[in-house]
Amino acid sequence: MHIPIILLIRPQMGENIGAVARAMGNFGLSELRIVAPRDGWPNPQAEAVAGHALPILQAARIFPDVVSAMQDIARAYATTARSRDVEKRVVIPETAIQEITQSSVGQGGKIALVFGPERTGLTNEDMSWCDSIVTIPTTEYASLNLAQSVVVMGYEWFKQSLGESGLESERSDTLIPAPIEQYDQFFRKLEGYLDAAEFFKVPEKKPGMWLNIKNMLLRGRFTEQEIRTMHGIIRALSETKSPS
Amino acid sequence: MHIPIILLIRPQMGENIGAVARAMGNFGLSELRIVAPRDGWPNPQAEAVAGHALPILQAARIFPDVVSAMQDIARAYATTARSRDVEKRVVIPETAIQEITQSSVGQGGKIALVFGPERTGLTNEDMSWCDSIVTIPTTEYASLNLAQSVVVMGYEWFKQSLGESGLESERSDTLIPAPIEQYDQFFRKLEGYLDAAEFFKVPEKKPGMWLNIKNMLLRGRFTEQEIRTMHGIIRALSETKSPS
Repeated sequence: MHIPIILLIRPQMGENIGAVARAMGNFGLSELRIVAPRDGWPNPQAEAVAGHALPILQAARIFPDVVSAMQDIARAYATTARSRDVEKRVVIPETAIQEITQSSVGQGGKIALVFGPERTGLTNEDMSWCDSIVTIPTTEYASLNLAQSVVVMGYEWFKQSLGESGLESERSDTLIPAPIEQYDQFFRKLEGYLDAAEFFKVPEKKPGMWLNIKNMLLRGRFTEQEIRTMHGIIRALSETKSPS
Repeated sequence: MHIPIILLIRPQMGENIGAVARAMGNFGLSELRIVAPRDGWPNPQAEAVAGHALPILQAARIFPDVVSAMQDIARAYATTARSRDVEKRVVIPETAIQEITQSSVGQGGKIALVFGPERTGLTNEDMSWCDSIVTIPTTEYASLNLAQSVVVMGYEWFKQSLGESGLESERSDTLIPAPIEQYDQFFRKLEGYLDAAEFFKVPEKKPGMWLNIKNMLLRGRFTEQEIRTMHGIIRALSETKSPS
């Protein structure tokens, strides 16, 4: 699978470069290239922000211009908030990442996600080296910063590269629902207590009410321990008087 | 369609609160609630960062604690990086947002995305008021900051709310969860009865036990009618003797 390269064009603030490296680390991206960073390189502010991602920053390669940075790139996506007068196809991040994860670009060919300077974004000249434009869908107030844009692209990449595997759990592993047998015992006990308390005032209504109560208590699927707790609760309540 | 509320619990830095508002503005989220902001409110640093999103910040509602902030919330997702020893289901952002956009929670019931303090994250007590945990998939170096986490959730929401427009939801369940306010009243009542019944025999163990009980009873998300039934049950049990 292709792991996209993050390519920053003329970034300005060191903090932002460090935050980009950090965002990359979250999502398993490791190759950073930087074209003509405004404040030179290495950049202490960038290093101060990078945290765990310092190795990503230290391994970053610096280039004087876009063309030299893209020598081995076989496909490039220009990330920009606005659609401009550039004759390129425009895709959303999900589509771009689908194309990257399913790409048939050969072994040698690398794929880059390209980000422009903080204030001005990518120029038409920068974008001329890219195949497609990726636009993160936002309201008219598009104000994602550089690292946040990398977060969105990295999130999509990590999500899709993981696929469906093991990301979710209906519950934590310890939450094993009690078998119906135990629910049944608990319901019998509860019904006995409720009958004794004359909870069901109108006998004809009891079957429907009792069904509703069983439904609502089953819905959360208590564990065995929780069923024991419920036994304890109804026993404690039934053996004492009301508090007030 | 439900537009989720962003609920920040005990946020620390004003800049981060401002950045959250800004992230919200990008993705069409407008309702911000804040529980006990460390540096008070209003917060000049937050306003300095907010930019276009200043109106979101100015309309933010401040609450002293989680329960008061969640009074009208019918479903809440706790955003946390690590899975903890909390008995909750865990979903990825995509699933959480699918559930929100397709939810049939009634008009009055609101949905919240809940975020903890920058350093420490949500406590188990905070999470006890939430139905599910949302974990943004990352590598082991999970270091997304507060605003970046809001960016990911906002991005998923905006993407899906755009995409789903005009699609009919397939589910139409008639079970409308009661808002937290009613759960809170019920829990207070139950706690009073249990204290009076000396249910918590070992005082040091009460906080953990009580948290477990609240978690298990919240899990099935009772409706308003069901909460009334629960009141009736515990009242009936408490006012009578054991049947045998």
